[in-house]
Amino acid sequence: MSKIPAYLSGLVGKSVHDIDTPALVIDLDAMKRNLGRMAAFAKKHGIRWRPHAKLHKSVQLAKMQVKAGAVGVCVQKTAEAEIMVAGGVHNVYLSNQVIAPSKLARVAALTQAVAPHGGQLAIAVDSIEGIVRLAQAMTQARTRPGLPGLATVIDVFVEIDVGQGRCGVQPGQAVTLALEISKHPALRFAGMQAYHGKAQHLRSVGERRQAIASAVQAVLAARQQIEAQGMAPGLVTGAGTGTFALETASGVYGELQTGSFLFMDADYAHNERDPVQPHFEHALFVKAQVISAQASHAVCDAGHKSLAIDSGMPQVHSLGGAGGLDYFNGGDEHGILRPAADGKHLPELGQPVWLIPGHCDPTVNLHDAMIGVSGGLLRGTVERIIRVDARGAMT
Amino acid sequence: MSKIPAYLSGLVGKSVHDIDTPALVIDLDAMKRNLGRMAAFAKKHGIRWRPHAKLHKSVQLAKMQVKAGAVGVCVQKTAEAEIMVAGGVHNVYLSNQVIAPSKLARVAALTQAVAPHGGQLAIAVDSIEGIVRLAQAMTQARTRPGLPGLATVIDVFVEIDVGQGRCGVQPGQAVTLALEISKHPALRFAGMQAYHGKAQHLRSVGERRQAIASAVQAVLAARQQIEAQGMAPGLVTGAGTGTFALETASGVYGELQTGSFLFMDADYAHNERDPVQPHFEHALFVKAQVISAQASHAVCDAGHKSLAIDSGMPQVHSLGGAGGLDYFNGGDEHGILRPAADGKHLPELGQPVWLIPGHCDPTVNLHDAMIGVSGGLLRGTVERIIRVDARGAMT
Repeated sequence: MSKIPAYLSGLVGKSVHDIDTPALVIDLDAMKRNLGRMAAFAKKHGIRWRPHAKLHKSVQLAKMQVKAGAVGVCVQKTAEAEIMVAGGVHNVYLSNQVIAPSKLARVAALTQAVAPHGGQLAIAVDSIEGIVRLAQAMTQARTRPGLPGLATVIDVFVEIDVGQGRCGVQPGQAVTLALEISKHPALRFAGMQAYHGKAQHLRSVGERRQAIASAVQAVLAARQQIEAQGMAPGLVTGAGTGTFALETASGVYGELQTGSFLFMDADYAHNERDPVQPHFEHALFVKAQVISAQASHAVCDAGHKSLAIDSGMPQVHSLGGAGGLDYFNGGDEHGILRPAADGKHLPELGQPVWLIPGHCDPTVNLHDAMIGVSGGLLRGTVERIIRVDARGAMT
Repeated sequence: MSKIPAYLSGLVGKSVHDIDTPALVIDLDAMKRNLGRMAAFAKKHGIRWRPHAKLHKSVQLAKMQVKAGAVGVCVQKTAEAEIMVAGGVHNVYLSNQVIAPSKLARVAALTQAVAPHGGQLAIAVDSIEGIVRLAQAMTQARTRPGLPGLATVIDVFVEIDVGQGRCGVQPGQAVTLALEISKHPALRFAGMQAYHGKAQHLRSVGERRQAIASAVQAVLAARQQIEAQGMAPGLVTGAGTGTFALETASGVYGELQTGSFLFMDADYAHNERDPVQPHFEHALFVKAQVISAQASHAVCDAGHKSLAIDSGMPQVHSLGGAGGLDYFNGGDEHGILRPAADGKHLPELGQPVWLIPGHCDPTVNLHDAMIGVSGGLLRGTVERIIRVDARGAMT
C-alpha cells in the first residue's frame, strides 16, 4: 500500500497555488455534488448501487460512498479486494474472472475475514473450471491454518456477454453455470453480471438505448432458462456511468456498478447527454505547469506518465480564462499546447494549466495520492490528501 | 519511494512458474547481453554514455550501468534526480526544463548533496527566464539553513530543437542563452542538448539517417555562433536507442543518452534495423494469464493498468510455441487474444501468456518492482526483485 509523500501531506491547509506539478487534484465540492446526484438517483428508483472502486482505488472514498447509500463496492482485482477489506469495507464484489488457485485461496480467505463484520464477498465466473476451482478454494479455506475456520459462503454471479465481447459466456450458457454453482455448498448463485462496457462510450443517446435494450433481451432470455430449472434468478448487476438510467428503467437490473460519475472524465463528457440521466461535473484534474514557451506552442510538464491517454488526450480546462488550448501528445513527461480554433494566446512560462483527463481510472492509478481541494480550483484550499491505496494492486 | 510487496520478495529462488500475474519480468540474461553490447559500442567509439534512467527508474539498474561504463544517468524529473542521488548515483543530468522556484531550490540542494562525493549535477534550459531562476536558486542554496553551504556550480546545457518540436530553442538562439549562462558564477555552460525524439521511431533507416543529418547541421550552426563569441562549445548530448550510431558517427555528439536498448520494447523492434547499430533483444515482459476462454477469443489479465499502450498494443511472445496470437485492447485490466494470421489455436484457461510491451518506460512506471529471472522465461529462476524506486516520482 502506497504511503503519502511528505510534500503532499504538508499541503493541507495551503492554497491551491502551492500545489507542485504535475499533481492529481480533486475538486471536492464538485465530487460531492456528483455523489449526491448518484445517491439520490438510486434512492429515488429503489435500486441497489455498488460503485466500482477500480476508479479511485481509495478506501476513504469507498467509505464515503457507502455512507452515501452504496451497498459496498465492486473491485476488479483480488489485491484491490484485500485492500478494501483491510481498510474496513466489508461488502466487496470482485466483478471479474479469477482463475489462479493462489488468488482463489486469497479470495476464500477474504470471505473469512469479512464474515465476523457481517460482510459478504461476491465474485464473477464465466467457466465450469472457474467454479470448480473456486469451490475447492472455499473448502480448503475452512481448514487452512491461520484462518478462523468459518463455514463461509461466497456469492457467485454468472457473467454473460451482453455485447462487450470480452469475458462472459453467451446468455444461453448461463443456466449451465448456474446449475454447477448450485452443486457446491460453499457457493451461492447470486444472479448475473451483465455489464455492457462498450455501450458506455457510444456517443449518441440512440445507440446507447439500442445497446442496452439488446443487453436486457439477453438477460431476460438467460433468466427464463434459469427459472425453468426451478432456480431463483437472483440479482442482475451491471451498468456504468454512460447508461445506468437505461438499465434502471428496464426493471431487469437490480444493481448499478457506476463509478466514473464521481470524477467525470473527458471521454464521458463527449457522450451526447441523455436527459434521463443526472448531470455530472468534472471533478478530477491534473494540475500542470508551462515549462517551455516557444513561438508556435507551449509545453507543460504532464505527459502520459501522469495522465492516461488510452481514451484520448486530456482537455485543457477553461479555468480563469486559461482555456482555448488544445493538448497534443508530447510523450511520457510532456504535453504540447497549441491555440484551439477559437484562437486564444499561448500560456506563459510558469503558468499553471489544468487538464481534464481523458480517462479517470488509469489516470488515478498513476498517482500515489489525490489532492482534495475545497473552494474551487482558482482560489481554493487543500482540504485533505486522499491516498490511492490500491495503486498498482494488480494481482 | 515504493516498497517491495512481500509477495514479490518471497519469490526469490522460486521458479518462473510461481510468478503471479500480471507481473513485470526482466530476462536478466538478455538484459545483460544488451548492456554489454551498448557498453562495448561506447567504448569502441570513445564516446561518453549516460543512459536515461527514466526507463527503469531504478537505483540498482543505474548503478549496474555505471559499473558497465556509463558516466552517470539522465533523468527527466527533479524527483527522479533526488531518488538517484539518495541511492548513491552522484552524476545526474536532469535533461528537461525546470521552471518552478520550489523545484529549482531542490535542484540546487542536490548540487550540494553530490559535491562531497565528487559528483556533479547538470540540467537543461531553453529560456532566459529559466537561466535566471536557476542562478537565483543556486545562489540562495549557498546560504540556505540545513544545506552544507558549498559554493557549488551546476552544468547547464542549452536545449535546441533539432526536429522534435517540443522543448528547446531554435538553433540560432542557442548563443544568446549560452552568453546568459556565462554571466552567472554558479552556472557553467556545458554545451547543448540536441535530442531528436521523433527520429528514434522513424521506421526506415533512410528516414532516420536524414533526420539525424539534419540535427547535426543544426548543432553545427549553433556551435559556430557560440565559438564566434569566443566560448568553448562544450559537449553535445542526445541520441536514443533508434539512432545513436548515427549521432556517434557524426563526430559532433559527445554523449549518448540511450536508455531503451536495455529492455527493447515492441515499438523499437518495429524499426528497420540499421546495420551500423548493435542488435538488442527483448528483455522486459509482462507475464499474464488467460482468465476467460471463449469460442472466438481468450482474455488475459493484463490491460493498460499493467502495460502502456501509448505506442501500440503489446506483442504476444512466441515462448514455448505460445505465439501466433494478436493482443487487442480489452480495457484497463484485460487483454483480448485472437489467433494471428498464421492461425494458431487459442490458449487455454489458466495458461500463461508473455507479452512484450509496446513501450517500456511508461510500462515500468505502472509497477512497484521488476522480477529479475535468470535461466530464461521457460524454465528460469527468480534471481532478484528490482524496485522501481522512482515510480510515480513526477514532480
